[in-house]
Amino acid sequence: MKLLEDRILKEGVVLPGNVLKVGSFLNHAIDISLADEMAKEFYRLFGDRKVTKILTIESSGIAIGSLTALQFGCPLVFVKKSNSSNVSGECYRSVARSYTHSNVYTAVVPKQYLSSDDFVLIVDDFLATGEASEAMVDIVRQSGATLVGIGILVEKTFQTGGKKLRSQGIHVESLASVESMENGKIVFTKQ
Amino acid sequence: MKLLEDRILKEGVVLPGNVLKVGSFLNHAIDISLADEMAKEFYRLFGDRKVTKILTIESSGIAIGSLTALQFGCPLVFVKKSNSSNVSGECYRSVARSYTHSNVYTAVVPKQYLSSDDFVLIVDDFLATGEASEAMVDIVRQSGATLVGIGILVEKTFQTGGKKLRSQGIHVESLASVESMENGKIVFTKQ
Repeated sequence: MKLLEDRILKEGVVLPGNVLKVGSFLNHAIDISLADEMAKEFYRLFGDRKVTKILTIESSGIAIGSLTALQFGCPLVFVKKSNSSNVSGECYRSVARSYTHSNVYTAVVPKQYLSSDDFVLIVDDFLATGEASEAMVDIVRQSGATLVGIGILVEKTFQTGGKKLRSQGIHVESLASVESMENGKIVFTKQ
Repeated sequence: MKLLEDRILKEGVVLPGNVLKVGSFLNHAIDISLADEMAKEFYRLFGDRKVTKILTIESSGIAIGSLTALQFGCPLVFVKKSNSSNVSGECYRSVARSYTHSNVYTAVVPKQYLSSDDFVLIVDDFLATGEASEAMVDIVRQSGATLVGIGILVEKTFQTGGKKLRSQGIHVESLASVESMENGKIVFTKQ
């Protein structure tokens, strides 16, 4: 998606450890007009499929998740990281590692929010090593719901997450695919 | 807002310690149609004022914050709780206590995302003791921005947060005001 690639080139900052910082428009301060265009793009890519829930993970997935749910006219459910005193009852759980924060957390969704009747589209801001996406896929499988696919804003294709997910037959769409960030220069995969 | 009050009566659960659990439609699984109606109500209540940024706090404020930003056609900025390796550079910081989770955290916003030119509408899901709102007000003041007001989904008027904020002359609007939850019975303030 050219609009997103241009913005990443303009405002994205490459930090040590292959971290791409896009907090000024994508996942901390959020350009809602751009986010709304990206949500419409997800609808264009997956709107021919039945979708009953959008699933994302806190915190930075929730904005794009909300706007995508608005496009699909269905509820949003978000995965919480680690348990909280406010998540009571039976839950689906999956252990994941955060690439950005170098820690391990448990992804949690109360069982009442996902069932075998659901058709789930997973949405997230980044796909790098794929740990968060894999935890969400694991939770969808535990629930017995149908996984429609995964919509990602920015995929780093030089990391292994996308390959692992696609090799399982999962339909993954990324709106911007970063092929390399060597010496701070961001190169996108040609569409 | 009757739509919200009716839904709270239908699905809200009163937990020990005056916690009102509305995770099934408001802040964990999110009924996006309802959230969109609430965002439109915030626009009806504050839309005559100049607003350049919507400010909210992770995680449960982000969904309503995103939809409200869409109504106002302006960016969303969210406050992160505690510092993260991905928040670099100069930040506004304010210490707050979580009523629900009984812990203390530092509310953080990078300085580049709020400036003295901004007109800020704060949006959050709950107002009880007001600690999160006060931390956001503190951050807005540190930035020199103009505080337009605070839009809240559910206020517990039997707790002190709303009174403290309004006594400072802040324009606070709550879409549902819970007067009491004694013995698990939810009573709303008459509009």
